[in-house]
Amino acid sequence: MKNQPFSPIPEEIIAKSLAEMKFSDKGLIPAIAQQGDDGEILMMAWMNQDAIRETLTTGQVCYWSRSRQSLWRKGETSGQVQVLQHFRYDCDQDTILLIVDQKGVACHTGRRSCFYHEITPDGLKITQDVTIDPARLYGDK
Amino acid sequence: MKNQPFSPIPEEIIAKSLAEMKFSDKGLIPAIAQQGDDGEILMMAWMNQDAIRETLTTGQVCYWSRSRQSLWRKGETSGQVQVLQHFRYDCDQDTILLIVDQKGVACHTGRRSCFYHEITPDGLKITQDVTIDPARLYGDK
Repeated sequence: MKNQPFSPIPEEIIAKSLAEMKFSDKGLIPAIAQQGDDGEILMMAWMNQDAIRETLTTGQVCYWSRSRQSLWRKGETSGQVQVLQHFRYDCDQDTILLIVDQKGVACHTGRRSCFYHEITPDGLKITQDVTIDPARLYGDK
Repeated sequence: MKNQPFSPIPEEIIAKSLAEMKFSDKGLIPAIAQQGDDGEILMMAWMNQDAIRETLTTGQVCYWSRSRQSLWRKGETSGQVQVLQHFRYDCDQDTILLIVDQKGVACHTGRRSCFYHEITPDGLKITQDVTIDPARLYGDK
């Protein structure tokens, strides 16, 4: 998947897209983030209409935080932003696929991807190492 | 990601994994399916505890169909099964990543992946062609 500069999506196209997508009764839709150059699945989070509009106009991925009940500009605190490359959704219009360029790491544990637990015949395994100390991402508190 | 033969997961490891995973108030957890050899995201669907147990013991991916309210053995009707390679979950234990070998196509429209709608500055685009006629997948009705 090629890395190309982001062009903002015009409002009329955003409005048409939002009208097609199906949101939960809480106004949310799941969004998968995949790294563009190597295809690694980074994380899954949720978006609402405001988060989608911000992502499509700025080119920086913005989710909806269910725990904080506010827009979650990915990387705003940690610096680990996601630059949008492609915005896709599925046949049922109820799941989003964001193809991104993740700066640094996606996971709050300091790992590249959030999907580092694996169930194997020998037991549960951790498949990824921490590459950035979380204290560096969020500061010592 | 290498393609290796499936080994059934022992019950004690399944039980430990299920105890770690977080399910919605409807007993469900989202599961992303990714093709092992090229990293393509195929689909996102839902699993419950029974679907997870069946998947981990048989090596054939089984979801929970929210519309039919029953186990959904992927490919049972269409033949387009998903053979499990790796079963991972995320840092929050609330999303699953299935790395699979998809036989044929994942999407009921006859496309390899369900994520074929793309929002571009020029409008909505279809990014994938139909590779198997859906009439062949499900029979003429």
